[in-house]
Amino acid sequence: KQPVKLLVLPGDGIGPEVVREVGRIIAWLEKKRGLTFELTEDLVGGASLAEYGVPIRDEVIEKAWAADAVLFGSVGDPKWGHVSFDKRPEVAILKLRQELGLFANLRPAKVFDALVDSSTLKPDVVRGLDIMIVRETVGGIYFGDPRGIETLPDGSKRGINTEVYTTSEIQRVARVAFDLARKRDNRVCSVEKCNVMESGLLWKEVVTDVHARDFPDVELSHMLADNCAMQLVRNPRQFDVLVTGNLFGDILSDLASTLTGSLGMLPSATLGAEQADGRRPALYEPIHGSAPDIAGQGIANPIAQILSFAMLLRYSLNLQSEADMIEQAVSNVLASGLRTADIMAEGMARVGTSVMGEAIVREL
Amino acid sequence: KQPVKLLVLPGDGIGPEVVREVGRIIAWLEKKRGLTFELTEDLVGGASLAEYGVPIRDEVIEKAWAADAVLFGSVGDPKWGHVSFDKRPEVAILKLRQELGLFANLRPAKVFDALVDSSTLKPDVVRGLDIMIVRETVGGIYFGDPRGIETLPDGSKRGINTEVYTTSEIQRVARVAFDLARKRDNRVCSVEKCNVMESGLLWKEVVTDVHARDFPDVELSHMLADNCAMQLVRNPRQFDVLVTGNLFGDILSDLASTLTGSLGMLPSATLGAEQADGRRPALYEPIHGSAPDIAGQGIANPIAQILSFAMLLRYSLNLQSEADMIEQAVSNVLASGLRTADIMAEGMARVGTSVMGEAIVREL
Ligand SMILES: CC(C)[C@H](C(=O)O)[C@@H](O)C(=O)O
Ligand SMILES: CC(C)[C@H](C(=O)O)[C@@H](O)C(=O)O
Repeated sequence: KQPVKLLVLPGDGIGPEVVREVGRIIAWLEKKRGLTFELTEDLVGGASLAEYGVPIRDEVIEKAWAADAVLFGSVGDPKWGHVSFDKRPEVAILKLRQELGLFANLRPAKVFDALVDSSTLKPDVVRGLDIMIVRETVGGIYFGDPRGIETLPDGSKRGINTEVYTTSEIQRVARVAFDLARKRDNRVCSVEKCNVMESGLLWKEVVTDVHARDFPDVELSHMLADNCAMQLVRNPRQFDVLVTGNLFGDILSDLASTLTGSLGMLPSATLGAEQADGRRPALYEPIHGSAPDIAGQGIANPIAQILSFAMLLRYSLNLQSEADMIEQAVSNVLASGLRTADIMAEGMARVGTSVMGEAIVREL
Repeated sequence: KQPVKLLVLPGDGIGPEVVREVGRIIAWLEKKRGLTFELTEDLVGGASLAEYGVPIRDEVIEKAWAADAVLFGSVGDPKWGHVSFDKRPEVAILKLRQELGLFANLRPAKVFDALVDSSTLKPDVVRGLDIMIVRETVGGIYFGDPRGIETLPDGSKRGINTEVYTTSEIQRVARVAFDLARKRDNRVCSVEKCNVMESGLLWKEVVTDVHARDFPDVELSHMLADNCAMQLVRNPRQFDVLVTGNLFGDILSDLASTLTGSLGMLPSATLGAEQADGRRPALYEPIHGSAPDIAGQGIANPIAQILSFAMLLRYSLNLQSEADMIEQAVSNVLASGLRTADIMAEGMARVGTSVMGEAIVREL
């Protein structure tokens, strides 16, 4: 049996310490489930800037192509606030998405029963919440041309960005959303701003076409982005799968995550297109950032990173039962009362990053 | 004394019925406060489409220029879902903003003590919330060129919109925000997505410059739009004044409003630039939409429209004490237990649109 080839990119801030906990899970899988992993580690973000002067090297992109999947920590460091626009740490993740064609970002926003009280929303509003946001990640205003800042004849400036979506870009991400919905509650809500933006009008038309042609069994609705932000706060459980563009997805998925009250718990997957050889590039990362304020203290919550790895097992390696086991172990450890600082509550036992990691492996 | 010239544009859905209640307040001001009003009413949105085949006529724009202020209801009607992009009811408000140069949309998000429980957020998180969002409304991706949908050689399509901001557009809205902050808690948070968009980078630079040059006494912070959506849910009371572009402002101001649990209570003002003759075009509208589902039933909440009129007195006519009186009357009526359906709670007295309007005038 071939070893699983993983590229591990811990990045900045708490990235390295939470990624380390995944190492324990990998060791367990090798020992108890007969899997073998071939790990390659490299630098991205501020860590790469410090060592190589760029947020990501071409070599790392090549390694990502060669791997079965990429396990990503997080990038971003206020230390690099002064660098030029093309050198900022975030370029690492943007370039990985674009060069590997990672167009579908899957972001579950799920409320864990044990943590329902940590939300700022009333428990009755969020209990049992389970939304999947599918965000397009290689198009839209993030990558459209023309872009930049130009100086006008009078010395003042003009900043420009361009939102572009083509039929095929919309089709492929819509398909991912409809496919996912079939395995869930079979409902998709497509979000744009078609009352103001023509790109949103095209988005709505194309999603409607894909639905009619290939997924008539799935329930489809449409919502304006501003209304969606409101509905997420008023009645988030009305949603099953949401599908939207890059910029709206950035904002709405962060909003949805926050409803759960436990950002440190939420994983994500970003999937590319199936290649000629049947392989599909994919990257897995927690949705929390690099949290420089608590980095290096051993108090970060490793669960989002561990659940990102569970998504990797599920989507890239088709190891459903191993993924289920890890998710169950996380639930059990929470039920037993262990909590990292970010999700601490009265009467619970407060633990650090590695004790949480160990507890999850022990539970396995 | 010259009469106050108002252009009244009730629009669609519940617009006409809530605007009608403002009529009572105007009558009271004429009788008790010695003011005289000269009202002109006209059609916009679906109502104008039905009568004239366009969402707004040039004549209405001219009347808006001639007026001291515009009192707007709301536009939007699912009946007109099929019309072409340039004829949709929303064009009425977009055109008024653009043609009158109404660049600064002021949207307070305030929690009324009597209604703190109607939020889906925990009372402890939103009690006393009082944010002012200043949204730029004549620039950004709403109006940038090129825009549209083009057909590619292979028959597929491409939708395009352009985000553009110039130094002067950013300066003038930043000034409005800093000025407002001085009359409040003296703090401004500027929101963009400068880690991905150059237009956001320029936004941040210009706001920083305006601050350093003219408002060093105001506290300024910067936040990414995705993080801002999260912070609004996690800890909304950290904010005083938020200033942001058209698209982010659309989403974030709706989000902020929803935190209050009472959309039917929230007014807005949209201000233009001072003209050579000292006049300043301005439009006042509730932030709730046309709510076609409850239109014509006499159950809509008229308070947001009435408070929009109070903002008109305050910002366009400098009638501070009259504005204060109306705001106080609204608080008192709520404290006395009257509620329209949207804010109904146990033990309160449920009333319709006109009983609520009458009660507020009686309180005056
Ligand atoms: C780091 C940043 C460029 C990124 C984005 O805006 O896409 C992040 O916010 C995310 O959501 O993954
Ligand atoms: C009606 C619509 C065009 C408008 C907008 O998107 O600006 C509305 O949502 C608003 O916020 O005033």
